[in-house]
Amino acid sequence: MSLTLQRIPAFSSALFCRCSSKSFQRHCSRISSKKVRVSDALSSEETGANVRIQGWVRSVRPQKDNLFLHLNDGSSLQPLQVVASSHLNTRDLTFGCAVDITGTLEKSPSKRQNVELHAQHIKVVGECNPVDFPFKIKERHSLEYVRQFPHLRCRTNAFSSLLRIRSEATAAIQSFFRDNGYVQIHTPVITSNDCEGAGELFQVEVGSNDPNPHFFSVPAYLTVSGQLHLEVMAGAFSAAYTFGPTFRAENSQSRRHLAEFYMVEAEIAFTESLEDLMKVMEDLFKAATEHVLSSCAEDVELFHKYTAPGRRAIDILKSSSQNFTFSTEWGCDLQTEHEKFLVKHCGNVPVFVINYPYELKPFYARDNQDQPNHTAAAVDLLVPGVGELCGGSLREERLELLSQRLAQAGLADTYAWYLQLREFGSVPHGGFGMGFERYLLCILGLHNIKDVIPFARFSHSCLL
Amino acid sequence: MSLTLQRIPAFSSALFCRCSSKSFQRHCSRISSKKVRVSDALSSEETGANVRIQGWVRSVRPQKDNLFLHLNDGSSLQPLQVVASSHLNTRDLTFGCAVDITGTLEKSPSKRQNVELHAQHIKVVGECNPVDFPFKIKERHSLEYVRQFPHLRCRTNAFSSLLRIRSEATAAIQSFFRDNGYVQIHTPVITSNDCEGAGELFQVEVGSNDPNPHFFSVPAYLTVSGQLHLEVMAGAFSAAYTFGPTFRAENSQSRRHLAEFYMVEAEIAFTESLEDLMKVMEDLFKAATEHVLSSCAEDVELFHKYTAPGRRAIDILKSSSQNFTFSTEWGCDLQTEHEKFLVKHCGNVPVFVINYPYELKPFYARDNQDQPNHTAAAVDLLVPGVGELCGGSLREERLELLSQRLAQAGLADTYAWYLQLREFGSVPHGGFGMGFERYLLCILGLHNIKDVIPFARFSHSCLL
Repeated sequence: MSLTLQRIPAFSSALFCRCSSKSFQRHCSRISSKKVRVSDALSSEETGANVRIQGWVRSVRPQKDNLFLHLNDGSSLQPLQVVASSHLNTRDLTFGCAVDITGTLEKSPSKRQNVELHAQHIKVVGECNPVDFPFKIKERHSLEYVRQFPHLRCRTNAFSSLLRIRSEATAAIQSFFRDNGYVQIHTPVITSNDCEGAGELFQVEVGSNDPNPHFFSVPAYLTVSGQLHLEVMAGAFSAAYTFGPTFRAENSQSRRHLAEFYMVEAEIAFTESLEDLMKVMEDLFKAATEHVLSSCAEDVELFHKYTAPGRRAIDILKSSSQNFTFSTEWGCDLQTEHEKFLVKHCGNVPVFVINYPYELKPFYARDNQDQPNHTAAAVDLLVPGVGELCGGSLREERLELLSQRLAQAGLADTYAWYLQLREFGSVPHGGFGMGFERYLLCILGLHNIKDVIPFARFSHSCLL
Repeated sequence: MSLTLQRIPAFSSALFCRCSSKSFQRHCSRISSKKVRVSDALSSEETGANVRIQGWVRSVRPQKDNLFLHLNDGSSLQPLQVVASSHLNTRDLTFGCAVDITGTLEKSPSKRQNVELHAQHIKVVGECNPVDFPFKIKERHSLEYVRQFPHLRCRTNAFSSLLRIRSEATAAIQSFFRDNGYVQIHTPVITSNDCEGAGELFQVEVGSNDPNPHFFSVPAYLTVSGQLHLEVMAGAFSAAYTFGPTFRAENSQSRRHLAEFYMVEAEIAFTESLEDLMKVMEDLFKAATEHVLSSCAEDVELFHKYTAPGRRAIDILKSSSQNFTFSTEWGCDLQTEHEKFLVKHCGNVPVFVINYPYELKPFYARDNQDQPNHTAAAVDLLVPGVGELCGGSLREERLELLSQRLAQAGLADTYAWYLQLREFGSVPHGGFGMGFERYLLCILGLHNIKDVIPFARFSHSCLL
């Protein structure tokens, strides 16, 4: 064994030290310059500081004496302007190449930026042949075009903004729940349940060559919802949530559907009213959106300025037709066309729809025991342009009612464990789920769900 | 349509208002008492306050004049002591039942708690038959026993502590990366890649009755790592990370393996040294652990006090034998027994092992181009009791070397997209993954990975 060892002391110590050992660091010639991110450079007050900035070139403008570059490293939409003497220009300094630049930050004479980088050294660390590179300088590529390149589209301004927004929205949602005392539960992706009783499940197996394809001894599926698992937790925690991928094998290529998408789901114990659930949905929506608007103002503006208005007009135009394809009789489920009409009818603002026909809702929805219209205590939040954003319900916590309904559906044995949750210390509880991609479509005014997820999976498409 | 509508104004408004509508709130008889969580009650300075506390009964001690209860709602390990007049005792007030109590918080005469709740009303909202309930009052159930009840084990002290720790560790890891400027990327669960070139993949398909079982037109798998997808992001962001479920169809029932487990993965652009990667791993480990130790001190203590020492002694005993089953010649991979020996050899502290034999490492690992021992710039972090906690490497960013290696492995076509990442603005980069369950085993001194995940999936087992 000639492996080199390095030690760090036990984790219980607050201070880590490192024993010296053979160093494998390739020495950097510019060790004296401080590495700085573009976003930090842009907000820097310190002029004259010697810095090292690494990123990708977003524009090259050679002039007689000077060379102007725009540099981006993914930390902000706004690039850093770099000014260099013309003799630093090289043939490989092209749109899309990766560079390592040292220089000094100086006050910019332009109003468009606060500081600029006066470069002393420019090193192209990764070339980018502009002929082969699918994105062209100064061209605005359509989202449809960009979507063809899942491995490269994060290098466009719009998708890089989207990913920053997505990251911040994720953080905001997690903070919201944590600040409100929810425990985050990693509900499983693989499950032997079929939560909704619906079809459209992906099955999980080891290779078809395997003599025993049932790895888990039972058929196993990709989860369509973490709700039942969260209900387990609502037997020990006042409030729990999950935020992770969920799956539908819907054979649809629509702009609204993905085979893999993210869902925020919450479950609240000791809750007896839909009002309480609606309050959580509303607070969540507000908290997340306020955070995104304040932390990614520039990125959101990009969408609102260029992308959203055109599409919005189309949506409004479309929804102005009131000749609905589907019936709107009591007892029929709402179709997207109805959801949109309702939102518009209410002045194009988010709308809660509550108390759905009992027979339409799954076994876990709480019976309102009302008449003549027999309803379940369920709620949907509809939003402009998207339709259903959240769906939730009070859950049937009464053992007798639940066990009757499961028996009628022939599911009593399958859900024996679920009945036990009501047998031992049952509590009135309820919860909801929010489609994360739909949330992003809603706040950004975007149109196609494939544009708000890093790698889209849908019928006939699983690139990378 | 007799659905009831409620409106909330557009999300762009900072203030939401709600139009009045038919209210579905079932009126609460004790609307004047403020709902308080157990953890907030325990740290309350305000005595005499009228409060309403809901939770589950963890102990019942009837005495002549008074009744003493311990109440837990999942917000803390420590329960709230409830004192009530004996006449409030009822037959259904048993261990495990759910209750809704109103009363006043008063200074406790006991040293074991600061405050106690003097109950005026106690309502059992969910009964719990102590004969049928698998957990018994005052009995310490083994982790093995508790594991049989995945739908109920969150009601035990130990597993409820574990879930709080897991939730806080998740938050700490996410904060660490966010504070350091990483973008969080939701890398896909379903993928057409086989990242490691290894077998042991789960295949994803629609039902076997389907005439066209390839939903995605190509074979699709559950991800074994988000690394390649993160490398896509390392072409546009200085630093990106992912934290989500990963999968292995390993036919193992060992205490170290799960079919579904969580992985933290980071990828850092413009990184040229393993030292930089090791620093991130070390900082991550420290930041997460410091947060967990400070925010869940009581919960961690439970494990360190009761659960860990016995197991640790066994581990140390086992690893004292140096008759290894597997060879330790150069070129052979490290087995768990070696990892543990190395950790022990270094004084039972976390150890980095760097520069592994080139041929052992996957195609993406960066060639050190050294001799006589040809190595790749890879690093593992080994920790006591667990073995490998993190694995990482610099990635081969040089187009020529990478394309040669892929061609030799016959993978050039499959990974054409991956080569393109090096063709357009390639940067030196590297990253690592940390097994989240292994991290929890390590800091808690636990032994079996099934005890640190809400719902364990492994060979022949997919309960719920």
